[in-house]
Amino acid sequence: MTKHTQSGVQALQWTGHSLNVLDQRVLPEKIEFDEYTDALGVAEAITTMRVRGAPAIGIAAAYGVVLSVQQHFPRAGANWQQYVLADIETLAQSRPTAVNLFWALGLMKAALVGQQQNPLLAALACAEKIHADDIEANYKMGELGAELLVNTKGILTHCNTGALATGGYGTALGVIRSAYARDTVKIYAGETRPWLQGQRLTVWELAQDKIPVTLIADSAAAWLMKSGEIDWVIVGADRIALNGDVANKIGTYSLAVLAKQHHVKFMVVAPTSTIDGAIESGKQIEIEQRQQSELLPACYHNNSYVSAWNPVFDVTPAELISAIVTEKGLVESPAHNGVGKLLAD
Amino acid sequence: MTKHTQSGVQALQWTGHSLNVLDQRVLPEKIEFDEYTDALGVAEAITTMRVRGAPAIGIAAAYGVVLSVQQHFPRAGANWQQYVLADIETLAQSRPTAVNLFWALGLMKAALVGQQQNPLLAALACAEKIHADDIEANYKMGELGAELLVNTKGILTHCNTGALATGGYGTALGVIRSAYARDTVKIYAGETRPWLQGQRLTVWELAQDKIPVTLIADSAAAWLMKSGEIDWVIVGADRIALNGDVANKIGTYSLAVLAKQHHVKFMVVAPTSTIDGAIESGKQIEIEQRQQSELLPACYHNNSYVSAWNPVFDVTPAELISAIVTEKGLVESPAHNGVGKLLAD
Repeated sequence: MTKHTQSGVQALQWTGHSLNVLDQRVLPEKIEFDEYTDALGVAEAITTMRVRGAPAIGIAAAYGVVLSVQQHFPRAGANWQQYVLADIETLAQSRPTAVNLFWALGLMKAALVGQQQNPLLAALACAEKIHADDIEANYKMGELGAELLVNTKGILTHCNTGALATGGYGTALGVIRSAYARDTVKIYAGETRPWLQGQRLTVWELAQDKIPVTLIADSAAAWLMKSGEIDWVIVGADRIALNGDVANKIGTYSLAVLAKQHHVKFMVVAPTSTIDGAIESGKQIEIEQRQQSELLPACYHNNSYVSAWNPVFDVTPAELISAIVTEKGLVESPAHNGVGKLLAD
Repeated sequence: MTKHTQSGVQALQWTGHSLNVLDQRVLPEKIEFDEYTDALGVAEAITTMRVRGAPAIGIAAAYGVVLSVQQHFPRAGANWQQYVLADIETLAQSRPTAVNLFWALGLMKAALVGQQQNPLLAALACAEKIHADDIEANYKMGELGAELLVNTKGILTHCNTGALATGGYGTALGVIRSAYARDTVKIYAGETRPWLQGQRLTVWELAQDKIPVTLIADSAAAWLMKSGEIDWVIVGADRIALNGDVANKIGTYSLAVLAKQHHVKFMVVAPTSTIDGAIESGKQIEIEQRQQSELLPACYHNNSYVSAWNPVFDVTPAELISAIVTEKGLVESPAHNGVGKLLAD
C-alpha cells in the first residue's frame, strides 16, 4: 500500500554468525565495518559509540545476546544461561539513557526462557524480529508523521535519527524522508555538538540517498526560526516518560523552547519501545554525562583551571511538544493526555 | 582608584615600526605572532581572522593606517594621501559587521587632515590613543558591569570578548574578570561554533590568567539555565543600533531568547564606538555570511546535495536585553529608551 523511499544505508548487518557494525565514529570520511562475534564486543561497540541511536542500540544489543548464546551454549553445558545472563548484564550497562536497550534485552531474556534445546534459533528469531519490527515501525511513523506536514516549507532536525540510528529507515528522519517523498521540503540539520551526529551522520545519509540537506551550527537555529524558513522541528527520543516528557540529545530542549517562542511546531518521533512505562515524568530520567575530553582540546586536559560540562541528553517537557508520533499512532499536545494510551494495546 | 585584575594576554603589539598580531586561528595549540609592515597585510589579517573581535579589529586597522603612512609618505611625494586613502578603503572592506572598524578608520582619516609635515607622528598618536582608550574603556565597563552582579553565582558568556578581542582587558569578559576579582563566581563559556572562539580563545585566556572556566556545548546552554546554575548571560557586541538592538556572534540571539524564558538576565558590554549612530534599528545591520567550508567537512565540498547556512552574526532585539554597559555609563532595559543618550556626550 505505502510507497517508501528506502534508504541504502545499513548500519547493522547480521552475517549469519556475526554482527557487522558500521563504525559511525569515522563517518563521513571513512566507511568501515567492524565484525563482532561476541556480546562483549557489541557492548564495547555501544559504549564507544561505533553504533548509537536509541533503536539501533536496542537492535545491536539483541544481536549481542544472539552472539552470547552462540558462544556459550555449545561450550558451557548446563550453565550456559548464567554466562548469557552475565553478558546481558554487561550489555545493559553499555549506555544509560536509551530505554530501547533495556526493552530489547528484556525481550531477548524472555525469548530464552525454557529454550534448553535450541536457544540459538530462538534468540536469532527474536533479534531478527526486533530488527524487522523496527524497520516496519519506522515506515509507519514516517507515514503518520508526514501526514501532519501538509504545506510545510522547511524542517529542522537534530542529531541523527535515520537509517544509522535505527533498523533501517529512521524515526524523525524517517518522517522527513516520507515528507520529502511526498512533496518538496527544505531540510536543515543542526551540527549536534559535541559528537557532530548531524554534520557527520545525518548529512551523510541524506546525501547517500540523494536528498538535499543544509547544515547549520546548533546556535544558528533560533536565527533560522526567526527568518521564517522552518515550520517544524522534528527530533527522535531516547526515552519518553508517561507524561510525555522526552529525553533526547543535548540541544533538543533548547530547540523546543526556541520553537515555541517562534511559533514553530515541534514533533518527536519514536517507536513505543522508547516509552518507559515505569516512569511518570522526565524528572526520573538519568542523564548521561560523557567525558570532558569530547569538548576540551588535548592542550587543556591537564589544566586545573579548565573543565567542561558535558551532559549528552536533556529533557524536553511535554508542554513544549506539538506531537509525539509512534508506530501505534500519534498523540497531539501530549501535555494534555500523556502517552500511556499508546502502551495500552 | 580602581584595582584591576590585568590580563597577561596581548594580542596586538606595536613594535615601533610594525604590528605584531597573535594568530588566533592556531590558539590554543600554538602561540604564534605574525609581523605586519603594511596596511594590506593588516587587512588580510582581519579578513582571515588572525585578529577578530570588534574592538581589536578597530585597533588593528588603526595601526594598519600607521603602516600605510610609514610606507607611502617617504616615497610617494605629494601623492602619499591618495595611497593612504586607498589603503583605508581596503581596510574598510576587510570585514562588514563590526562598526568599530569604520569608526577607527574615520578617526585615523581625521587625524591625517592637514598633516603634510609629520603625518606618521599624527597617525601613530591617534592609533595609540585608540588602543589606550579602548583598554581604559574596558576597565570602566568592567567596574560598571560588575556592580550589577552582586550575589551572582554563575555567568555564561559566548564567543570571545576578552583581551584577545580588544585592546587588552575585555568587554563582556572584562566585566566577568572584574566580577571574579570581587567575589567567587562560576564562569561558563559556550564553544561558539563554527569558529570555536569560546573553546579556543575564551577558555585559553582565562586559564592564562588563572581564572577557572567551564566549557559547554552551545546547545547545552538552555539545559544549564534550567538547572539554575547561572544568573546572567554576558556578551559583547559587533554593532548596536540606536534602539538598543545588538548584532553579535551567531548564537547570541538564541541565548537571549532562552535567558528570558529562564529568568536569567542578559547583559551586553561594548564601548560606545560599537554604537552605530547612523542606524535606528537592528534590521539595518548587514549580517556577514561566511564560507560553507567552516561548517562542512572536505568530503562534502563537491556534493551537490549538501550545503551549509553560515551566518556568523545575528541580531538580538533590545527587549531581550537587561542592560547595555559602555564606558560612558549603562542603560538598563534599553528597549524603553534606546542607547542614543550614550552618544550625546
